[in-house]
Amino acid sequence: MEYIRELLKMHLSISENEWETFQKHLVYREFDAKSLVVREGMIAQNIYFIESGLMRSYYLEDGKEINTYFSCDGALITVFSSFLRQKAALECLEAIEKSKTYTLSYEALYRLYQQFPKFERFGRILAEQNYLCILDRTMLMQTKTAKQRYLDFIETTAPKIIQGIPLYQIASFLGIAPESLSRIRREIVRS
Amino acid sequence: MEYIRELLKMHLSISENEWETFQKHLVYREFDAKSLVVREGMIAQNIYFIESGLMRSYYLEDGKEINTYFSCDGALITVFSSFLRQKAALECLEAIEKSKTYTLSYEALYRLYQQFPKFERFGRILAEQNYLCILDRTMLMQTKTAKQRYLDFIETTAPKIIQGIPLYQIASFLGIAPESLSRIRREIVRS
Repeated sequence: MEYIRELLKMHLSISENEWETFQKHLVYREFDAKSLVVREGMIAQNIYFIESGLMRSYYLEDGKEINTYFSCDGALITVFSSFLRQKAALECLEAIEKSKTYTLSYEALYRLYQQFPKFERFGRILAEQNYLCILDRTMLMQTKTAKQRYLDFIETTAPKIIQGIPLYQIASFLGIAPESLSRIRREIVRS
Repeated sequence: MEYIRELLKMHLSISENEWETFQKHLVYREFDAKSLVVREGMIAQNIYFIESGLMRSYYLEDGKEINTYFSCDGALITVFSSFLRQKAALECLEAIEKSKTYTLSYEALYRLYQQFPKFERFGRILAEQNYLCILDRTMLMQTKTAKQRYLDFIETTAPKIIQGIPLYQIASFLGIAPESLSRIRREIVRS
């Protein structure tokens, strides 16, 4: 679980005692490739800290899957709005590849906030990052061309995600038609 | 400054000592009606706790002002993304009416986080609310009709904002053409 400790240590200094307590709340869960972790309409009960694997969140629009987030080894994922409100998710969470995770439940996190207020910082930074992420995504969609969006994506995204996600799913994430993305990639290779 | 204490007390139990320290960081500032508080390209240095007044944030699109948030007595406002990143704002902040505020600077807030980790909760909830707000707004724009968006707005918004904001600015906030909003309002009155 060292990767989770590292993730926390990026923002907090935590004592052995605090880490021990945090750790006790984590529950190991494995998901097969292509399995649904949170279904639309379910409540996202957990944050998933990914030890190894590849996961995505997406919503359905006219029967088409629109990807909203990808995550892999050493990072985390959830359906954040459903998790925060403990209400039915409008998005799905899927394991793209077989994924090994440690989960932290909503109840456990709120118990940790009470016990050690310093964990509030983890919650604050998580919320701030989610806020900036959705804002940047909206801006990107509104102000950048498809080619700029793709270049931005490959510059800022973990190689495992770029390589592990089928091209049509990257296209859906970037709001680009699959044919256009193929053309953009050919142009980039040529230039 | 009691309204600020009330705002904090919605989420935190704070001691006299903690409130004393928090209070020392607040700086009183008044803004005339129609004055720009944060200009696009400036850094949002402060959170503005509004004692009395009416403020809005907006961005410019093809020379047109698109409103993103309104706030009034007893609530707060900032350009959150600029405040968090301490980078140039893509939005403006304006006092619509003469506004009396107490401001809390970025530096002061981060000093408070260090001194009393419990204030992290204030930051967490602020970030969570901003996240949910932008998400709901995006969803609303994508999935609801203009009439539903307007009904939702008058149901969830402080009367002072509904009455104090010119109709064309509410229209820009809701992504509705001013003529359409007038028609919708006539329909509602008739029904």
